[in-house]
Amino acid sequence: MSMNWGLIGGGEGSQIGGTHRIAAALDGAFRLAAAALDIDAQRARAFAMRLGIPKDRAYGDWREMLEGEKSRPDRPTLITVATPNSSHFEITRAFLLAGFDVLCEKPLTTTVAESQEIVRIARENGRICAVNYGYSGYAMVRHARAMVARGDLGRIRVVVAEFAHGHHADAADADNPRVRWRYDPKLAGISSIVADCGIHALHLASFISGQEILSLSADFVSAVPGRELEDDALVAFRMSGDVVGRLWTSAIAVGRMHGLGIQVFGEKGGLRWQQEQPNQLYWTPVGRGTSIIERGVAGLSPEADRASRVTVGHAEGFFGAFGNIYADLAERLRARQEGREPNPLALSCPNAEDGLRSVAAVYAAAESAKSGGRWVRSATSIDL
Amino acid sequence: MSMNWGLIGGGEGSQIGGTHRIAAALDGAFRLAAAALDIDAQRARAFAMRLGIPKDRAYGDWREMLEGEKSRPDRPTLITVATPNSSHFEITRAFLLAGFDVLCEKPLTTTVAESQEIVRIARENGRICAVNYGYSGYAMVRHARAMVARGDLGRIRVVVAEFAHGHHADAADADNPRVRWRYDPKLAGISSIVADCGIHALHLASFISGQEILSLSADFVSAVPGRELEDDALVAFRMSGDVVGRLWTSAIAVGRMHGLGIQVFGEKGGLRWQQEQPNQLYWTPVGRGTSIIERGVAGLSPEADRASRVTVGHAEGFFGAFGNIYADLAERLRARQEGREPNPLALSCPNAEDGLRSVAAVYAAAESAKSGGRWVRSATSIDL
Amino acid sequence: MSMNWGLIGGGEGSQIGGTHRIAAALDGAFRLAAAALDIDAQRARAFAMRLGIPKDRAYGDWREMLEGEKSRPDRPTLITVATPNSSHFEITRAFLLAGFDVLCEKPLTTTVAESQEIVRIARENGRICAVNYGYSGYAMVRHARAMVARGDLGRIRVVVAEFAHGHHADAADADNPRVRWRYDPKLAGISSIVADCGIHALHLASFISGQEILSLSADFVSAVPGRELEDDALVAFRMSGDVVGRLWTSAIAVGRMHGLGIQVFGEKGGLRWQQEQPNQLYWTPVGRGTSIIERGVAGLSPEADRASRVTVGHAEGFFGAFGNIYADLAERLRARQEGREPNPLALSCPNAEDGLRSVAAVYAAAESAKSGGRWVRSATSIDL
Amino acid sequence: MSMNWGLIGGGEGSQIGGTHRIAAALDGAFRLAAAALDIDAQRARAFAMRLGIPKDRAYGDWREMLEGEKSRPDRPTLITVATPNSSHFEITRAFLLAGFDVLCEKPLTTTVAESQEIVRIARENGRICAVNYGYSGYAMVRHARAMVARGDLGRIRVVVAEFAHGHHADAADADNPRVRWRYDPKLAGISSIVADCGIHALHLASFISGQEILSLSADFVSAVPGRELEDDALVAFRMSGDVVGRLWTSAIAVGRMHGLGIQVFGEKGGLRWQQEQPNQLYWTPVGRGTSIIERGVAGLSPEADRASRVTVGHAEGFFGAFGNIYADLAERLRARQEGREPNPLALSCPNAEDGLRSVAAVYAAAESAKSGGRWVRSATSIDL
Repeated sequence: MSMNWGLIGGGEGSQIGGTHRIAAALDGAFRLAAAALDIDAQRARAFAMRLGIPKDRAYGDWREMLEGEKSRPDRPTLITVATPNSSHFEITRAFLLAGFDVLCEKPLTTTVAESQEIVRIARENGRICAVNYGYSGYAMVRHARAMVARGDLGRIRVVVAEFAHGHHADAADADNPRVRWRYDPKLAGISSIVADCGIHALHLASFISGQEILSLSADFVSAVPGRELEDDALVAFRMSGDVVGRLWTSAIAVGRMHGLGIQVFGEKGGLRWQQEQPNQLYWTPVGRGTSIIERGVAGLSPEADRASRVTVGHAEGFFGAFGNIYADLAERLRARQEGREPNPLALSCPNAEDGLRSVAAVYAAAESAKSGGRWVRSATSIDL
Repeated sequence: MSMNWGLIGGGEGSQIGGTHRIAAALDGAFRLAAAALDIDAQRARAFAMRLGIPKDRAYGDWREMLEGEKSRPDRPTLITVATPNSSHFEITRAFLLAGFDVLCEKPLTTTVAESQEIVRIARENGRICAVNYGYSGYAMVRHARAMVARGDLGRIRVVVAEFAHGHHADAADADNPRVRWRYDPKLAGISSIVADCGIHALHLASFISGQEILSLSADFVSAVPGRELEDDALVAFRMSGDVVGRLWTSAIAVGRMHGLGIQVFGEKGGLRWQQEQPNQLYWTPVGRGTSIIERGVAGLSPEADRASRVTVGHAEGFFGAFGNIYADLAERLRARQEGREPNPLALSCPNAEDGLRSVAAVYAAAESAKSGGRWVRSATSIDL
Repeated sequence: MSMNWGLIGGGEGSQIGGTHRIAAALDGAFRLAAAALDIDAQRARAFAMRLGIPKDRAYGDWREMLEGEKSRPDRPTLITVATPNSSHFEITRAFLLAGFDVLCEKPLTTTVAESQEIVRIARENGRICAVNYGYSGYAMVRHARAMVARGDLGRIRVVVAEFAHGHHADAADADNPRVRWRYDPKLAGISSIVADCGIHALHLASFISGQEILSLSADFVSAVPGRELEDDALVAFRMSGDVVGRLWTSAIAVGRMHGLGIQVFGEKGGLRWQQEQPNQLYWTPVGRGTSIIERGVAGLSPEADRASRVTVGHAEGFFGAFGNIYADLAERLRARQEGREPNPLALSCPNAEDGLRSVAAVYAAAESAKSGGRWVRSATSIDL
Repeated sequence: MSMNWGLIGGGEGSQIGGTHRIAAALDGAFRLAAAALDIDAQRARAFAMRLGIPKDRAYGDWREMLEGEKSRPDRPTLITVATPNSSHFEITRAFLLAGFDVLCEKPLTTTVAESQEIVRIARENGRICAVNYGYSGYAMVRHARAMVARGDLGRIRVVVAEFAHGHHADAADADNPRVRWRYDPKLAGISSIVADCGIHALHLASFISGQEILSLSADFVSAVPGRELEDDALVAFRMSGDVVGRLWTSAIAVGRMHGLGIQVFGEKGGLRWQQEQPNQLYWTPVGRGTSIIERGVAGLSPEADRASRVTVGHAEGFFGAFGNIYADLAERLRARQEGREPNPLALSCPNAEDGLRSVAAVYAAAESAKSGGRWVRSATSIDL
């Protein structure tokens, strides 16, 4: 039976909203029951009704939705926050405090202190607060994580992460408002491409290696003249477990579409994965040839099998990955309803702590870049 | 608002059933309202209820479902038939005659005459009878079709289609019932790999080129000893518009996962596409270099844009393609409800005529193979 | 110490001549000592002298060269015949009869009977008559052959070969003399693309599988209007050892550069190789994942090691492959000079029998195509 | 007519020696006339004679060779120095001072000061002193350089270079003398993987962009315990023309074979190239799709055409690239002999200044790494 689901943000024409609706519907686990979809109240209500939400649950505003839903017996089992970054903190906090479980889009918040507060509130209230690092839902990313966890690679030595696209390369776009705000510190904060894309790659580095980022040394550049924030960055980092990290991320890499990729090198072997061809994982044991591990073949880890919906060779893509975040949450929420332990595999879904660590890493990278590449510790490695 | 949807077949553990449920849910257009999911009545009802269908619409049998649903005011707007091939004819026929619109899994029926009857009934009753050639839903397949239709390639000369996998290569599997029936003429009919996989490639050849298959010359072999039906086939064919066709299909191609691919060569250029990397289409105008056309970039055909849900570089896969078949049907059904013309782009969804042509082509290929490669006309090119 | 080498044909600007000179020089085994490089005597002599050949061995004509060289004590140890196809027979025959060892460009001759005579002469005179199927020199092709020979694939079931390019796709080229002659039966004989490119793929199918082609069924088409000979062909064939073959070859496949590839499927596994990325061989044992076998890694077959000159990852290409034909011949010639048995690995170099079998297969394919795809036996499978 | 060539180092079994002999022979421009091939005098002489060098020019030692050759009328037109790095300076210096033209293996010398002296000597003596950055000989690398030079990319913003392999990943190899010396500062100097492999990537970054490296910030790690020098490094750098650089290089990247690649991003477009598939260059103009530029097609730059020996689709590899260094030198040497200006395209061959700049960049990177990533200026950007 499907659970009631509430969505905040993701109005008409928004890509992220459409993707959340697809992902939540994919397995039939969630049914959109209430929503505040747009900053414009009228548009918000109209779009919600067009999506089939009854009038009384088609809200014009998240506060109105909180009021209207918090006491209903059929209130949403899960709230997704897909609003602009600057409102994540306020909305997520309010719903957690009202006892809702929340899936917040990345980044969790725009400051480290806010993320720490979210972590604290979620813990104190016993709420799930997930953060949508959707790429961690790919079956072969989960298989990579499982291979590392079970020791196939031995101790991890170096993780090389990359997220390069070229969609902000055109200087003629400088006045395009959809691009310009991203490089304006007043609107985008301390970092642009690292906070927007690099953060996914840093999260994957942690997710797969099972280690936390401790410190970073960064080189940020604004390759397109006139930008205040970086559109290309190189970051060296250190993780727990003595793991070395490398990240290159760029928004001016003309010809690269959505170049999120990761390579993990350990004592006993190396793994390589690319988001644009997500069904294959390349695995090379030391001293042996490279094998192509295909999603869907027999003998994969339970983590991969669980994250896969069709047989081998049928390209699974972004919706499946994203849907796995919802599948994890569905399992955790159902287990709680049923008073049982959730399937432990569902616990890998990124949570507020992961959100905090990522935000802290971005801050440390930005600080390093400002000081000429000095190594800066990531806050979460020391406190909380 | 979503429409009521009925599903026949696709019981627990069935891959095709799960995929239909995902595809129908993807855009929120259909809501599973009634079902007869399994040949075992008890299992059928129990699984339907676990999927959230109320008890009175959780049927034990398709006849029971037909009786129970045909007079309901909220009867399903669309019925999907996903049962074993041999029952497609009877079920599809019965629901069409009762005035339902139907999406039937491929092959439409197991004989040419039955397919002809389905075409006739659908026409006479003004019903939609779609056939699920799901690969035709990929955005880049639709773009290829649009490029051909608008003349980018000039006259098409040769289409080279391929569907090769190796999942039936293990002779030790000979007694595996999941494999064995496929090579038993009593259960699988006149053809195995051509009817199962080659048929998709033949359909794509027609779908993209916009031409019908007229005649074929085939070489069938049973590479694994003991099989009565072919597990590897090479087929030359001719299409309308003087287009030449080539097909290789195999179930013993060890190392090939789900190798559906197509190459289209015209006077002015050539196109190449592979199902396992569905987001890229390779295009080479005569005398120029090859371009990689990425799903999601600006400037694609309306056909491709409509079939795409996320921005470039986010791998779209099988669910999106399959979901596009449902999206086409949703548009056609809604247009009828609303008394308007459907978006003409929604009409590309394969229908009963396409189902008939494919079945006829398989029969002609099998007949050719039996007679040492003699060219055999495909029935639908002459009558109906 | 290098051996004296004679070259006939391959004049200035000829690609094949340049390639032979590079291949022969690659390992320092051969030194160009005498040549008749052009049909124009003056140009022949001038170019030979520019290449450093002394005036008295810079011939204007192959007959003059035969006269001049046959009695010299330092006469060439090897003669390469790289003239137009129609003169291969006469020249090769004459040099073999004069006791020279010969490497003849493919095709060995233009008729089956001529090829049979060359085989007979070479045998009766104890001469080496090699045929330059240069692609068989690639290290990974040799490794594939070795894997088949040592049983890694078990019994071979199906070989799928392909050689597709698009360099004759432009109808505007119809009057281009460099293209036109290829489709004129008076100049090109009974077949165009099969005789020119398909023949390499057929040879590779035999070379790797270790089997002979017995019979063929072919569909030839002239996709570009006005051509008398085929520019696209599909061929089914049967080989000894109950091996099934498939070939597609084309000159109008716009976007394909030099698409020679082969897939070999056996009881125990499958192999795939593409000439355009020749350093990788893809290997999938039944029931296992695919491995990428890289040229140059430890543990390859002696056949592959011997055919490789640099370490892994340094792309080896066409010159290396071609050079391996010369390396094989150098070893065989030196062994004879030294009165010892040659390294048996040097014997895989294609010889006159291979040349004959290929020519016979092309003839059988052409005959089949003329008779609507009837299966035709390849002459060499029965006589000689 | 071929020119006399002398080789120092590259004894029996040495890969680099064999490659130089192949590259020098490829076009017939050079003939091995004198050599001192091994540190062991007897082996040096024996191997030289086996290669066909007359006894009196088969030397046991480079000093003996210098004495023996310097006054001969037929002395080598070009001397190649392929000895261990530490002797490059002494030998190159001596031959330059004796008036020979030299091709020295990379690195030119082991210190910046020595490289500066070589540059000075070559200039003062009017000698060619080339340095063998062989990867700059690939046709598509030259085409990339030409595209940048003619402005196709507009101003270059970022160059991303990579050279990753995994051949030193096995900790069990720690005592393998072929690996161990590379991480011992007493034998290898100040840097291991950056000096050995990264230096090629840095050179390519300069070669293609046409800019010099000015300063660097580096993170060196010894991922395999017990190593004193780095086996993995991340380097940010700045070039003239306001170009930003990124380099990752590694010897522990298990599964990477010889991962030299480069991406160049400019205002108007981006280029990508990988050494392991050297015949393709990927080019994306801003706002357009990606094109695959194939070596050998019509319409390439003169730089690419000149560096290419066979038609499109015939994989050209490492020998061709390496041979292009020799082809450039042959043209320069011949032009001097003939008293004419050389083809200006032959001037792109890397010379002593390039060798000096690369050595200086490695030193600056090593110094930066020692000081925690501080930006360090590369010496050659200021003096000389």
